[in-house]
Amino acid sequence: MTHEITVHLGPRSYPIVVGVGVLASVGARLRALDVGSRVALVADPAVRRLHGARVADSLRAAGFTLSEISVPEGESAKALAVAERCWDALLGAGIDRTSTVLALGGGAVGDLAGFVAATYMRGINFVQLPTTMLAQVDASIGGKTGIDHPRAKNLIGAFHQPRLVLVDPGVVATLSDREFRSGLAEVVKHGIVADEAYFADIERHVGEVLARDVPTLERLIAGSCRIKASVVERDEQEAELRAVLNYGHTIGHALEAVTGYARWAHGEAVSVGMVAAARLAHRLGVAGAETVKRQEHLLEALGLPVRLPPLDHAAILAAIGRDKKSRDGKVPFVLAPRLGQFRLVFDVPADAVLGVLAELTTGGNAA
Amino acid sequence: MTHEITVHLGPRSYPIVVGVGVLASVGARLRALDVGSRVALVADPAVRRLHGARVADSLRAAGFTLSEISVPEGESAKALAVAERCWDALLGAGIDRTSTVLALGGGAVGDLAGFVAATYMRGINFVQLPTTMLAQVDASIGGKTGIDHPRAKNLIGAFHQPRLVLVDPGVVATLSDREFRSGLAEVVKHGIVADEAYFADIERHVGEVLARDVPTLERLIAGSCRIKASVVERDEQEAELRAVLNYGHTIGHALEAVTGYARWAHGEAVSVGMVAAARLAHRLGVAGAETVKRQEHLLEALGLPVRLPPLDHAAILAAIGRDKKSRDGKVPFVLAPRLGQFRLVFDVPADAVLGVLAELTTGGNAA
Repeated sequence: MTHEITVHLGPRSYPIVVGVGVLASVGARLRALDVGSRVALVADPAVRRLHGARVADSLRAAGFTLSEISVPEGESAKALAVAERCWDALLGAGIDRTSTVLALGGGAVGDLAGFVAATYMRGINFVQLPTTMLAQVDASIGGKTGIDHPRAKNLIGAFHQPRLVLVDPGVVATLSDREFRSGLAEVVKHGIVADEAYFADIERHVGEVLARDVPTLERLIAGSCRIKASVVERDEQEAELRAVLNYGHTIGHALEAVTGYARWAHGEAVSVGMVAAARLAHRLGVAGAETVKRQEHLLEALGLPVRLPPLDHAAILAAIGRDKKSRDGKVPFVLAPRLGQFRLVFDVPADAVLGVLAELTTGGNAA
Repeated sequence: MTHEITVHLGPRSYPIVVGVGVLASVGARLRALDVGSRVALVADPAVRRLHGARVADSLRAAGFTLSEISVPEGESAKALAVAERCWDALLGAGIDRTSTVLALGGGAVGDLAGFVAATYMRGINFVQLPTTMLAQVDASIGGKTGIDHPRAKNLIGAFHQPRLVLVDPGVVATLSDREFRSGLAEVVKHGIVADEAYFADIERHVGEVLARDVPTLERLIAGSCRIKASVVERDEQEAELRAVLNYGHTIGHALEAVTGYARWAHGEAVSVGMVAAARLAHRLGVAGAETVKRQEHLLEALGLPVRLPPLDHAAILAAIGRDKKSRDGKVPFVLAPRLGQFRLVFDVPADAVLGVLAELTTGGNAA
């Protein structure tokens, strides 16, 4: 079964197509958008080996002239030097304003290739072909693109909506256990801040999820895409509402920063970040103990980390202060008063954050 | 007298304020936009010496916390390494999403600082304070930002509208003769493609223009801003109409590229480019000899170059082929059938271009 979800953004509207095997339709679907004949496919060598041929064949069969650009695996793709090599390659391949850049891979490749497409000739067509859970349910939707600064993740970027997002739940079978679980963190996040029934659906099907049952994954992935799309529609450039999707990310990004982006996969850091946000909400009297427990239990059941190793808590606090969502010095925290709800809190005391970090490090309880 | 021109772009609308002394009002005007308290002023050392104190004082008096970022003079500011240093400096100064980047200087500083503002945290507030004729009448309006690729000018960039443009014709007194004349090329361009009466106004007042008579300059600068604003309003992202403003630029950019951006100031290259476009229009039967002559005579009267030194014409042709306006391999030429009118022509034969280049090199006549 194929799900088609439209992200309604006026002239920048686009479809997300979710379905097993949908990657092989990219050529025909792109052709229907009436873009120029040249396309560039950006992927890392491992993803290209797994899925590149199917995509390339589909594009060539539809009459496109294809260039392939190879980038490093994972977060190391999101570097200025890599963006520079991509711009060079696009110019060398004769890519012009009517051409299309396609990102095949995880969130990092999508962020990098999206940024390159956003800034090449002041913005050209862009297509997302996400191959990780994380990218499929979150990163590939909404037009956030960017690369990392040595001192701040995603510091350099742009909003640039894709023309098309193709999500193939069949590729999830090829993910490592760790990559797969990392992506589940964002799925859980959508339930926590936007949809209690969706959260409960995951709770009831932990077994099927971990067994990577394809119909279950297809249903949950399409559900997550729907939640993400509806948030993006209401707040394209993250004036306020879209901040909801940063649940667990304020502390999660800081954890990634102080550990040099090496200890955790992004979703793992977000998992601990969500547990911290849940406990913070409880400590501030915003959420009850049961709301905290359900989040922590589900993340743990999915095999995601919910505790911290010993770390420099002052450094974590300083990294939170550099969060790029801060407004005139104040950092907004997304908290969940109940499952399916959220609240933006600007005046979280540093002591409360330090208290939660200590609690998670020593393995204390929420209540 | 102060002219206020609004660029109508829905939620991205902004005013252009033209008037002697208007730079000293930047603090109060920015404060009225309800932006965050931190601002970064980008300028080269020479411009900062001339006008920096007035701008900085105005910002500080309005309560802003100011960081100053120094960049190289001229086109060398539009390099990736310079953008990188700017991103570093913004992060170091605690600039966040509510903050504002101000560009004080010519077109190059505006392009660079605009690109940095467009890509820092996916886009922050930006203000243009143009101090050259070229930037005042053209580059500072419309949201085109960008840096150069070693093989293609403005290849890396974004559309990012400023929140405010302040144009002080008083600063024109501080320009070198060459900078001043270079800016006049864009003034003439606006007359050629958009407004015959405006063109005739310049023809009648060549003496006052060259004497830098302030009321004359203020009138012409405001008129040019009005023409540019109306084009930008009708075609923000250069789908078609905005291409009119590239008159003389297709060949002009190619001339700059083959001479390593060293021989001509931008406006000088555009001047020769406009003469070439005029003669091309005549050669293709699009324009009459009189239309060609008036353009060439006015540019010459203003002291702008209208002839070519010996150059590699095949290299010029190749550079034209790399024009980033090309659509699926075809390069659009803007031609003027009559003064105040334009036509986009996609199928200009290479021979016609070579013929015109030869004519201008040997100093032959239009007809």
